[in-house]
Amino acid sequence: MISHVRIVLVNTSHPGNIGAAARAMKNMGLSRLFLVNPEQFPHAEATARASGADDILAQATITSDLPSALIGCTRVYATSARNRHLSLPAIHPRECAKRIVQYRDQEVAIVFGRERSGLTNEELAYCQSHITIPTHEDYRSLNLAAAVQIIVYEIYMTELSATRSSSNESLYQEVTHEQMNGFYRHLEEALVVLKFLNPKQPKMLMRRLKRLFNRAHPDETELNILRGILSAIEKKS
Amino acid sequence: MISHVRIVLVNTSHPGNIGAAARAMKNMGLSRLFLVNPEQFPHAEATARASGADDILAQATITSDLPSALIGCTRVYATSARNRHLSLPAIHPRECAKRIVQYRDQEVAIVFGRERSGLTNEELAYCQSHITIPTHEDYRSLNLAAAVQIIVYEIYMTELSATRSSSNESLYQEVTHEQMNGFYRHLEEALVVLKFLNPKQPKMLMRRLKRLFNRAHPDETELNILRGILSAIEKKS
Repeated sequence: MISHVRIVLVNTSHPGNIGAAARAMKNMGLSRLFLVNPEQFPHAEATARASGADDILAQATITSDLPSALIGCTRVYATSARNRHLSLPAIHPRECAKRIVQYRDQEVAIVFGRERSGLTNEELAYCQSHITIPTHEDYRSLNLAAAVQIIVYEIYMTELSATRSSSNESLYQEVTHEQMNGFYRHLEEALVVLKFLNPKQPKMLMRRLKRLFNRAHPDETELNILRGILSAIEKKS
Repeated sequence: MISHVRIVLVNTSHPGNIGAAARAMKNMGLSRLFLVNPEQFPHAEATARASGADDILAQATITSDLPSALIGCTRVYATSARNRHLSLPAIHPRECAKRIVQYRDQEVAIVFGRERSGLTNEELAYCQSHITIPTHEDYRSLNLAAAVQIIVYEIYMTELSATRSSSNESLYQEVTHEQMNGFYRHLEEALVVLKFLNPKQPKMLMRRLKRLFNRAHPDETELNILRGILSAIEKKS
């Protein structure tokens, strides 16, 4: 859990966006939601879109203005897809996530403005930095919950790579080099039986097949199936 | 614009998710949306959530099954927040985005399953790799449009930062989805001839073999060799 970061939504119009933001947060290990003067909250649409993250809605802190939602914070980031006339220094979500994960002993707020009009200049004045989410010039306007999703995803990814242990569990039952060689000998024999392979010139074809099966990186069960097919070929011929 | 990537949504229940996915795509410079058997489409909720990306909805291709949405594709990625019993090799969105941006001369599909139940094993068998979006253990279930948002964001970020080398030639002559399906039909016939496969119960074995060969991602020469072996089996028996 990332407990030093709060997500602050300012004067949100659509309760569905509040719910979707809560879900995005919980998916990515965040839990502290602050709602500044939401237009409609609580609301059935917020609960529906939160799905299994309704606990985050229930625990949300509601304030009447932005400064009240920032009490105790030492780092405050504003977010926007646009570059404003009077803009703060702007960084991308990935860069911001790196800093935030480092600031573990601080209290960080990430502030999201209104769906249509963003943050006012007065609200921006409470923020130290500006997070700009890169968007394509054809359509820059991100949905509010989508913007929250991107930022919390970047924070979680940074957190994961910061805490990841070196143990990389394998999904497969690895087969040994000898097991693979046993399979290749069996494959060569079966192809000779099929007269598909000229035993005097086996190299080129076997090299190609080895490259193919090495790429597939079979596990033990798969290797047993393949050898079963080879045995069936030998029996039939 | 990233024109070689299609987003495929399978049997989506909520039209709002389709609209939100279209918006996420347009924000990140993607435009090609495929809808496999959507429950409700077109729909006012899809249009509302698409906002300024309604052109993507209007141009969406609708198909009745997954293979029809994959025609012409040489790379097919399945997405899921879960690890399945019979799982494909799993990679993270960032790693996947790197590969996709490199495969500029290919046709790539990213497949998203149903909101509740994901993709069936039969559908997964059409995919070569599995994208797993990291989520916190407290709540793993991502909203569908949020999952699309994360993946297209990663693709756009990679595209933005890509230092494009001019030597982007592929090592392989890529095979199409249809060529792979032709190979699988041939494989199934040959295994029936060998009495290795019970034609009444082909699914489990064929699913395993498809997973193996999808992982190997054969090129055209390799596929011709494999089909030559299958023909030799049929002639011998």
